[in-house]
Amino acid sequence: MHRMVEDGDDVLLYLDRKRKYLIRVRKDEVFHTHKGYLNLNDLVGKSFGTVISSSMDTKFVALKPTIADYLQKIERRTQIMYPKDMALLLVYSNIGSGSVVVEAGTGSGALTSLLAFYVKPDGKVYSYETRPEFIEVAERNLKRLGLYELVVLRRGDVTLGMEESNVNAVVLDMATPWLAVKPAHKALEGGGTLASFSPTIDQTVKTVEVMGDVGFTGIETVECITRRYQVEAGRTRPETLMIAHTGYLTFGRKYSKAV
Amino acid sequence: MHRMVEDGDDVLLYLDRKRKYLIRVRKDEVFHTHKGYLNLNDLVGKSFGTVISSSMDTKFVALKPTIADYLQKIERRTQIMYPKDMALLLVYSNIGSGSVVVEAGTGSGALTSLLAFYVKPDGKVYSYETRPEFIEVAERNLKRLGLYELVVLRRGDVTLGMEESNVNAVVLDMATPWLAVKPAHKALEGGGTLASFSPTIDQTVKTVEVMGDVGFTGIETVECITRRYQVEAGRTRPETLMIAHTGYLTFGRKYSKAV
Amino acid sequence: MHRMVEDGDDVLLYLDRKRKYLIRVRKDEVFHTHKGYLNLNDLVGKSFGTVISSSMDTKFVALKPTIADYLQKIERRTQIMYPKDMALLLVYSNIGSGSVVVEAGTGSGALTSLLAFYVKPDGKVYSYETRPEFIEVAERNLKRLGLYELVVLRRGDVTLGMEESNVNAVVLDMATPWLAVKPAHKALEGGGTLASFSPTIDQTVKTVEVMGDVGFTGIETVECITRRYQVEAGRTRPETLMIAHTGYLTFGRKYSKAV
Amino acid sequence: MHRMVEDGDDVLLYLDRKRKYLIRVRKDEVFHTHKGYLNLNDLVGKSFGTVISSSMDTKFVALKPTIADYLQKIERRTQIMYPKDMALLLVYSNIGSGSVVVEAGTGSGALTSLLAFYVKPDGKVYSYETRPEFIEVAERNLKRLGLYELVVLRRGDVTLGMEESNVNAVVLDMATPWLAVKPAHKALEGGGTLASFSPTIDQTVKTVEVMGDVGFTGIETVECITRRYQVEAGRTRPETLMIAHTGYLTFGRKYSKAV
Repeated sequence: MHRMVEDGDDVLLYLDRKRKYLIRVRKDEVFHTHKGYLNLNDLVGKSFGTVISSSMDTKFVALKPTIADYLQKIERRTQIMYPKDMALLLVYSNIGSGSVVVEAGTGSGALTSLLAFYVKPDGKVYSYETRPEFIEVAERNLKRLGLYELVVLRRGDVTLGMEESNVNAVVLDMATPWLAVKPAHKALEGGGTLASFSPTIDQTVKTVEVMGDVGFTGIETVECITRRYQVEAGRTRPETLMIAHTGYLTFGRKYSKAV
Repeated sequence: MHRMVEDGDDVLLYLDRKRKYLIRVRKDEVFHTHKGYLNLNDLVGKSFGTVISSSMDTKFVALKPTIADYLQKIERRTQIMYPKDMALLLVYSNIGSGSVVVEAGTGSGALTSLLAFYVKPDGKVYSYETRPEFIEVAERNLKRLGLYELVVLRRGDVTLGMEESNVNAVVLDMATPWLAVKPAHKALEGGGTLASFSPTIDQTVKTVEVMGDVGFTGIETVECITRRYQVEAGRTRPETLMIAHTGYLTFGRKYSKAV
Repeated sequence: MHRMVEDGDDVLLYLDRKRKYLIRVRKDEVFHTHKGYLNLNDLVGKSFGTVISSSMDTKFVALKPTIADYLQKIERRTQIMYPKDMALLLVYSNIGSGSVVVEAGTGSGALTSLLAFYVKPDGKVYSYETRPEFIEVAERNLKRLGLYELVVLRRGDVTLGMEESNVNAVVLDMATPWLAVKPAHKALEGGGTLASFSPTIDQTVKTVEVMGDVGFTGIETVECITRRYQVEAGRTRPETLMIAHTGYLTFGRKYSKAV
Repeated sequence: MHRMVEDGDDVLLYLDRKRKYLIRVRKDEVFHTHKGYLNLNDLVGKSFGTVISSSMDTKFVALKPTIADYLQKIERRTQIMYPKDMALLLVYSNIGSGSVVVEAGTGSGALTSLLAFYVKPDGKVYSYETRPEFIEVAERNLKRLGLYELVVLRRGDVTLGMEESNVNAVVLDMATPWLAVKPAHKALEGGGTLASFSPTIDQTVKTVEVMGDVGFTGIETVECITRRYQVEAGRTRPETLMIAHTGYLTFGRKYSKAV
């Protein structure tokens, strides 16, 4: 099992929750922080989890980036869904190793990356996007994460139709999800899951209505809220500020009306 | 791709959110509901997603059970974690296809099942439990879900040590997680994730304290709250009652103190 | 200061959170509970806060009912607002001693009672209701609480107009609050507060839109959520179930468009 | 009824939620904003609720400050409780017109002001503070709000005892509320309410424990969370960021152990 840091590896240099740096280790390179610089050579051959000291003797932990770390750090032009939302979407949609999923839109590829990570090694994510500049960003991000081969990026508008059929799940993170419900129904296998994420209640209502009309059952809408805590004996309390809302998640499962 | 219902398949008969039945299709058997009976023969050879009518002409949708459906329906002697908690635990811990995970305690095997589902096809879940009666329940459940081969059930007390080493993640859902933090640190690979779930704040504080002492970084505690909505034009609102608390999730990543 | 229990006083017999009984003390009467009976004579002349034992030696505390106790116990035909919502409404609307308030609809008089309690001794609550059977219930409740003289119950439909003018605040708890916004604007003094409570988001959106059109500023919508805790060293945690939603509160202040 | 703006009146100049200015109207004075200046003479003799234009033709609404407006704007050296918390505390403690209340500590007098506003015209608030510099701030604030005559500011440490007896409620907003529980019990009338506000769970647990020991019943701890909404047809959603935690409110009612 590969666990030593090698030239070319991604490493997350962790100082504290607000100060963590995703770098790619290159021989003879130096990484500068406001707490001094680090010789990246010092990392090569060390285990992940090692503590490395900067020139100013600040200690960073060298971590292997998790998929959630990558999601926080990748190049991004849009941002709405958080890992909490993606986690719920994943499990409630039964997306796992081997799943075949259609996604729209790709955006910067954050959710695409998470889906690709979870359908490994034999699944596939077909991701639609109408704006070419986003497709480029997403491609760069997926390649950086080593997940590109699990994804087919399609330039196209899902409201006009999806090329795929018999897919296990369709995942919508777009401004007008209700327009993609009918194409999603067509693309899904019987019993397959449609999941849609929308920031506003208005988008959600429209989507739920079309889902009922088109042939989805078990429709439910949930909001996932995470509350962080300061945990310390004698001073334990929820954090003062919180992300109170990212969006609503709606799920449903395709059925065939004809018996 | 197998999508037709066959003899021996599990099917979720869905009427509405509160009335869904997980059954195993057996030729010539009849399934009785308070809305009439269903001839299971009628399902064989049909696609999942088909609507089937009972003798009283109530329509059920025949769905392929998702991992979340199974978690709701399996034999259970304990119940604290919900799919929402498991979803966060999974993604925040970077557990995916191929991961090697230690879990304690097994309980009825609900979380074990979810972990097994997500480490497919090449990962492994080593799950510890001290109470033999729970190990039996978990084994039955895992076999029912076809996930047993991904799991090693161990009768043993993790506070005394874990047999594994270099595992990607350790997941604790037990009454005294703080006693398992040191063994978890030993079993983890460098940078590996420890995730712990506890209903009370007191358990959480103790666990966080030991994690800091033993050598975990990036320690954070979150609570995952899901809020369900009644979505219907003109009548949209959050549901009146909600599960307000299941537990706190604490995460941290192993580092090696010696530089 | 009157603090001894007298014949004719209301007393809240408190056993625990789920078992508290609002009674009126009558000489020589006996109050029966599933934990035995209490001789009410035993209470007369005692201080509030006294512990009284039933025939089965269960101990009840004799408390003077608070306005919140009354709200929980009064005869009710509708129930949406909780004391938490009323508390926010009160303070955010600047309703206090001496305030003159219009309310619609009266319903069973729960909110009416709270408003009357807080405008004492010189304020007034004009409360409108279209359904005569509710007016009767409200009158009974207000008399029981000794607050009837602070209230004028009006049978009438506020969407057709309010008789009052220059009032400090208008409070709406009705199915179609948006239809009462214009009459409320007319009834309010300059800068006066309109507060509206609605269970659904749709009612709220309509009301906010009309408020903006008619001439309200500082419009804001909030939801008040209370989370109860089980507090006990070693076992502290939020309660499992919670009332997740009662309604949305919208506030705004009248301005005069003409400069 | 006085509703015209007069020389010496407080006015809240409202532009939007983030830009509102509490001023005192002085003849011939000018108020400068980043949107131009306002001649305060223009306000005198106008109704509250009037729109006034600045030199740059920005329109402000002249509102009579509510108690909640004052709480946002007064000179402050500490800040933990929000109007939402004060509102709950008020109603759950049955504090209203005529109530006699002990408070500790005074701090900048924000909660003191709200209590004074609500006990009008015949109640009294006895407020304790150990730090003389805070007493001065509180006195200035109370005088500014015209509430000073309802309050007795006491320099003293409530953990050593309270001078009052038979009070209706005791309200604690201090670092070590558990040390004031016994003195509070002594100062309260039978059945009177103790209310305590604490940011951390640790303070809350200690306070609840002492309350149980000393003789309080009906003890309960709640957290009041307000969620603000952006309400606009087609774009309705909760606001992204929210104050997730201010503190826990604990309530209990005095009883006399001896029967």
